[in-house]
Amino acid sequence: MNLRIALAQTSFLVGNIAANSQAIIEAARYAKQQLHADLIVFPELTVTGYPAEDLLLRADFIAHANNVLYDIAEKVTDIAVVIGYPEQEGDKLYNSAVVLHQGAVVICYRKQALPNYGVFDEQRYFAAGEQVCLFELNGTVLGLTICEDVWQTGVIARNKAAGADILLTLNASPFHAGKIHQREQIVCEQAKAAQIPLVYVNQVGGQDELVFDGASFVVNQQGEVVFRAKEFTPQISVVEFIDAQPQPCELAPLYTEISSDYQALVLGIKDYVTKNGFQGAILGLSGGIDSALVLALAVDALGADKVEAVLMPSRYTQTMSNEDAQWQAQALGVKYHIIPIEPAVNAFTAMLAAVFAGSKPDTTEENIQARCRGVLLMAMSNKQGKILLTTGNKSEMSVGYATLYGDMAGGFAPLKDVSKLLVYKLARYRNSLSRVIPERVITRPPSAELAPDQIDEDSLPPYEQLDAILERYIERDQTAQEIIAAGFLPAHVLRAISLVDRNEYKRRQSPPGIKITPRSFGRDRRYPITSGYKGL
Amino acid sequence: MNLRIALAQTSFLVGNIAANSQAIIEAARYAKQQLHADLIVFPELTVTGYPAEDLLLRADFIAHANNVLYDIAEKVTDIAVVIGYPEQEGDKLYNSAVVLHQGAVVICYRKQALPNYGVFDEQRYFAAGEQVCLFELNGTVLGLTICEDVWQTGVIARNKAAGADILLTLNASPFHAGKIHQREQIVCEQAKAAQIPLVYVNQVGGQDELVFDGASFVVNQQGEVVFRAKEFTPQISVVEFIDAQPQPCELAPLYTEISSDYQALVLGIKDYVTKNGFQGAILGLSGGIDSALVLALAVDALGADKVEAVLMPSRYTQTMSNEDAQWQAQALGVKYHIIPIEPAVNAFTAMLAAVFAGSKPDTTEENIQARCRGVLLMAMSNKQGKILLTTGNKSEMSVGYATLYGDMAGGFAPLKDVSKLLVYKLARYRNSLSRVIPERVITRPPSAELAPDQIDEDSLPPYEQLDAILERYIERDQTAQEIIAAGFLPAHVLRAISLVDRNEYKRRQSPPGIKITPRSFGRDRRYPITSGYKGL
Repeated sequence: MNLRIALAQTSFLVGNIAANSQAIIEAARYAKQQLHADLIVFPELTVTGYPAEDLLLRADFIAHANNVLYDIAEKVTDIAVVIGYPEQEGDKLYNSAVVLHQGAVVICYRKQALPNYGVFDEQRYFAAGEQVCLFELNGTVLGLTICEDVWQTGVIARNKAAGADILLTLNASPFHAGKIHQREQIVCEQAKAAQIPLVYVNQVGGQDELVFDGASFVVNQQGEVVFRAKEFTPQISVVEFIDAQPQPCELAPLYTEISSDYQALVLGIKDYVTKNGFQGAILGLSGGIDSALVLALAVDALGADKVEAVLMPSRYTQTMSNEDAQWQAQALGVKYHIIPIEPAVNAFTAMLAAVFAGSKPDTTEENIQARCRGVLLMAMSNKQGKILLTTGNKSEMSVGYATLYGDMAGGFAPLKDVSKLLVYKLARYRNSLSRVIPERVITRPPSAELAPDQIDEDSLPPYEQLDAILERYIERDQTAQEIIAAGFLPAHVLRAISLVDRNEYKRRQSPPGIKITPRSFGRDRRYPITSGYKGL
Repeated sequence: MNLRIALAQTSFLVGNIAANSQAIIEAARYAKQQLHADLIVFPELTVTGYPAEDLLLRADFIAHANNVLYDIAEKVTDIAVVIGYPEQEGDKLYNSAVVLHQGAVVICYRKQALPNYGVFDEQRYFAAGEQVCLFELNGTVLGLTICEDVWQTGVIARNKAAGADILLTLNASPFHAGKIHQREQIVCEQAKAAQIPLVYVNQVGGQDELVFDGASFVVNQQGEVVFRAKEFTPQISVVEFIDAQPQPCELAPLYTEISSDYQALVLGIKDYVTKNGFQGAILGLSGGIDSALVLALAVDALGADKVEAVLMPSRYTQTMSNEDAQWQAQALGVKYHIIPIEPAVNAFTAMLAAVFAGSKPDTTEENIQARCRGVLLMAMSNKQGKILLTTGNKSEMSVGYATLYGDMAGGFAPLKDVSKLLVYKLARYRNSLSRVIPERVITRPPSAELAPDQIDEDSLPPYEQLDAILERYIERDQTAQEIIAAGFLPAHVLRAISLVDRNEYKRRQSPPGIKITPRSFGRDRRYPITSGYKGL
């Protein structure tokens, strides 16, 4: 008994039901005609894209997503198609996978394990299913599961016990560093324990804060990965099963962690910019490491002709900053402008002189500089329809070392979940492919250049300390006591935690950025602004 | 059998467990000594405040919230105390109500109905309880329930069937217009159906986007409200039960809807500003209706001496705008400044001249004006530690008729959930109490004054049309077809909906504001930015 199963690792636009349906039809025809597949499996909630968030509360949206099934079933009759869709029954909505074959809706499976943690809100929308769901094709019995189902012990075994020969899993599993190993390990262990092969199809592409990394795979009943699709790339592949045993085939190599992070950022930028219809991107290029990395990422994501850099020096900008920024823009072949901010800063200083008479300079004056740059960049963004990329990193977002409406102004924040130390690692990694970031940008001490001879460490603990403290506090929920006990200086720990706690209001107004760690800011970490809690 | 039950309608700071515990102890002592109560009932999750969001994921936070029970029990022994807290058992967390009496933890109830819709995310944190929970005091059997429990048919009846004489309900039920009537009606119907009196204690006060309106009440088994605490005010009251029948007492009158909305906004501003430790508030006063209303609200919330207004005229600002703004500032007795924005606008225009050579003026130039105002206001906010209040309304937030980092810059957006027509109603309402907003501000056509002779209706449908369309689309999830079928001009409907859909990115970066409608922007309405769905 032979069965050829196609894995459709697709990148759909959330909410675009009509276009997604058309793409399903085309992919199914391709799988039949070119790959001679008997069955094609798509990712979770294929029809709507994932996550569709509160679009799922709209009756018209759900009706549309339910109606297209029949259209797809009618148009693709010679291959079995497994797609995900939000199934409405009575007043309940299910996260379902449906089998379409020979013009009919054959059977429908309802997801049982609805994740409601981290970035997931599935219990906001869906009721849980309770039944195993099997169907037969070419004499092989296939079981259906959806994403979180296979992370739970028991579901795979129940399918095997019910008679499944092969398990299909529709997924929308977002990337974070190391997730792919965790995912494969868990699925392989479960497949081996239940002695059943498993076909894991993942969504690919960026969607707001999330990047889905693809890397769909097939595991045999010995728990070995016998096929893997590429990471971060849409791909339709086929795996042949003989007597329900998957035949070994192409195994795309896994990226290293630093390379995965880089690819995730590139894909996240590319999809945010293109899926939202921008003409390109602009950014402020300071001569510092953060904007240097964002420029490299943007060029890799969009192409040099779509990216524009703006140098906005002030009296505090060192000569080497301008030199290095220009060098990089030229090296990457991007258009750049130089607009000194002094005239605007002077105008504001004069306008505020009467009101500020008698007060001492403080961060207010630093913020004015950052905000003048924000006004310039947004003007250029507005005029050209190019998105402004912010350049702040996760360390800065954590402790509020950034100016609201200044350097935080922009539509997308590629480094929002990238710590300062990882910024350096990614810059070195990018330079190892080809040299695009000046060495001096990487080696000089980081500075906001908003005051004379300023360096970050005047205001913050050294990044080697700070990033480790932040990772423990934000991603692992450790207390100050625990972090101090691990060997960090109490003064550093207390300062870092107190800054994180009191800068939630800034993060709440920051643009979305790409999740690459187990806990990012945004939908993933939901803190009150008004809070009397001190994590000390 | 007599039983005196105190209702503690408290306003606690989220996360401030130590201070909240102390306040519980003081309230209990007051209830015993001054009100001769036998029992005092607090709101839902008393110890942590509601909603504590992801603080609930932290082991140290939960441990602290669990440990204080014993401290409270030890310190208050002569009155039974019912408080809410996040109860940890094994790896599960419950939203629980606990009875403390005579130094001991008597019994603990676990909330059964965990809301996970709208602004609520309780299934992110809590497991559901399953048991009815009764305890006896002075020969009376009391049942425990928490908030959503009593909105579900069945829970009240199960308590009655199990032998409860009186039902206690701990709540954190946020305000929106008309909610109090809905709340009392549902509870009264359920009490009557089950033939059991019910004590409903609600939290009061502002917490980020939410205002809890208090208005705790007692309903008898005939379904009649026999006691009601004030709306929007902390209050500890007592109701006497004789043979489990509540004795009629004080019944605070309900505010009218417009008055409730106004009070909710005042309390929301007051608590956001004071709980976050600001020295006061500043705002841009344009001579338009929105900033006029925000100024009145801010003065009512904080007092005139804590509020500062800034007039920032441009060449497009009409003389009457300046006159009216000054008149209002003087009438309310607030300090005000006049800073014309021309020098900064000219500076930016000159700085961008080369880059913009050959391009025509568009909204870019309007945005520059708004952003110059943003820079000035934020500088004054930073310098003084006063929060900047934005003045945009819900109609503008819906269609993106606002400038990011310009008039959207600020820490709190009081009118974020107030439609333009409601802004007018609230202004008239406020003037009916005492005249603080110039009549001309209310009667002139609204204008952003960012271009010559500009009025809002140049860009938007008339607000009578627009607001009705927005309410149907945003709050009721109606489709364009349904709204058109209800009699609205197709061109208006399509334009409004398309603007709502494409301005999600602006709303994502807007400051928090006060929810006063059934569906506000923020945690209540969660839309993807990247979306191919057209609600048309």
